[in-house]
Amino acid sequence: MLFQTLDILGTIAFAISGVLTAFSKRLDPFGVFIIAFVTAVGGGTLRDILIGNTPVAWMQDITLIGVVAASVVFALVLRNRLDKLRTSLFLFDTIGLGMFTLIGIEKGIGADLHPLASVALGTITGTFGGVIRDILCNEIPVLFQKEIYATTCIVGGMVYFLLAYFELPMFWVALATIITVIAIRLLAVTLKLSLPSFYPSEK
Amino acid sequence: MLFQTLDILGTIAFAISGVLTAFSKRLDPFGVFIIAFVTAVGGGTLRDILIGNTPVAWMQDITLIGVVAASVVFALVLRNRLDKLRTSLFLFDTIGLGMFTLIGIEKGIGADLHPLASVALGTITGTFGGVIRDILCNEIPVLFQKEIYATTCIVGGMVYFLLAYFELPMFWVALATIITVIAIRLLAVTLKLSLPSFYPSEK
Amino acid sequence: MLFQTLDILGTIAFAISGVLTAFSKRLDPFGVFIIAFVTAVGGGTLRDILIGNTPVAWMQDITLIGVVAASVVFALVLRNRLDKLRTSLFLFDTIGLGMFTLIGIEKGIGADLHPLASVALGTITGTFGGVIRDILCNEIPVLFQKEIYATTCIVGGMVYFLLAYFELPMFWVALATIITVIAIRLLAVTLKLSLPSFYPSEK
Repeated sequence: MLFQTLDILGTIAFAISGVLTAFSKRLDPFGVFIIAFVTAVGGGTLRDILIGNTPVAWMQDITLIGVVAASVVFALVLRNRLDKLRTSLFLFDTIGLGMFTLIGIEKGIGADLHPLASVALGTITGTFGGVIRDILCNEIPVLFQKEIYATTCIVGGMVYFLLAYFELPMFWVALATIITVIAIRLLAVTLKLSLPSFYPSEK
Repeated sequence: MLFQTLDILGTIAFAISGVLTAFSKRLDPFGVFIIAFVTAVGGGTLRDILIGNTPVAWMQDITLIGVVAASVVFALVLRNRLDKLRTSLFLFDTIGLGMFTLIGIEKGIGADLHPLASVALGTITGTFGGVIRDILCNEIPVLFQKEIYATTCIVGGMVYFLLAYFELPMFWVALATIITVIAIRLLAVTLKLSLPSFYPSEK
Repeated sequence: MLFQTLDILGTIAFAISGVLTAFSKRLDPFGVFIIAFVTAVGGGTLRDILIGNTPVAWMQDITLIGVVAASVVFALVLRNRLDKLRTSLFLFDTIGLGMFTLIGIEKGIGADLHPLASVALGTITGTFGGVIRDILCNEIPVLFQKEIYATTCIVGGMVYFLLAYFELPMFWVALATIITVIAIRLLAVTLKLSLPSFYPSEK
């Protein structure tokens, strides 16, 4: 129940982030919906395709289409006030990141993958919706440039396997993973952290 | 037989639309072929991947590769006269849109999907060849900007399930779906319809 | 053993070509790793998805992740001297092209595909890592513009089926395929060959 709620909150936040990107490209209503949908379910879809878990999740569970559609309508109606919701949206987005990473890891374990491949699958689930969104909008994915997004998922995955190794109850392993992802992301944004750069800094 | 002919006409039109885009980007002969191929079979390939219907269709039915290759040669030879064929090409393209939508819906039903997911699958089959074409050519997909393309597929899908609900013979359901798609698209282009915009109009 | 070594050399070269592209886009360390990874395993991943061979190869054989990670570290450490290794890298890259094409063809045969589809699968395996790399970096894929890359894979595939038709031992068929790919590519680069252009040349 708790996890289902977190999943839906995350889906809403991802969909709205898609709406905002689509707006900035001045897409038509259908384009806005598709970008929102792809941002929300793209990571999970790629995950399902990579492990052969087909038909992919959103085709089997129609509620996902409904949640995205409702989020798009909500974002359209409130589009001039979304700024005031910025903090809530950021929080939901971070919850979504944690939740999606967790689901990806567990699907990887379910498909008998090595922990390393499972963490990769969790990271893909959490982040590739945004990558596909950026590709469709003809941008170099934000993920590859300055976000600490992916690192966060990877550390979350390491926490998962560390705690699972000590045979903690799965509920606590799952919760700790999500909380780790959320904590790191909040910390990173607060402290304006990013990965160290290879390039000489411009002046 | 009728449906097979429509399918091939659609494939030809989609392939030629790929050739024209590739020309405008000045790609080399191999690039032209790939873009034509992806435009013609990309939607169906994504459909097969999403429902796990692998190896994907064009790998099992080699004639598709032949049809695309012949279309590319045809377009290359006649490239200075394609303008005169514009009306025929537009008609074939519209037939292809209807046909591909129908095939996608039926594959969705065959995979036990919910009608909503089946309509989505039909829309993907009809439109994502063009989306992949635009991504490979480094453009924001036309689909997301001003085409009424996708809306057309969705309405076609609704007609399909409405008629199927009243248990009409499948041949007539299928034909009505294709004709709906064709009629809406012709109407839309004639009346220069597009979805209403969210954005204040520029003057 | 021989083929395994060639496979790893090719993976290293493909990964490093990804690192160089990522550098030119000034991506962050995580972005560099992802682009290197996608360049090295993207072709094989698309191949596995198209034929339904899931979970895809790199999820089942974790060593691929390790090889890419080591290549990235190597390229980062030596990044100011990679120029001096240019000839070796080009050679490894060419070996990788031949090896990946061969693997793709053999997987196609294993999935009971028509020779034409198998050659297409080999070409996809050899070249689509680079295509995905270019899409993620927001470039029109080099493959479609002036490289003779794909033609090389296709000729290699024809040699494969020609020799297999005459029932030569598989080891020699495989070796001849790889050597064909390498020879054509070296020749093409030496003679600055490319496919003839459709377009009037600029002056």
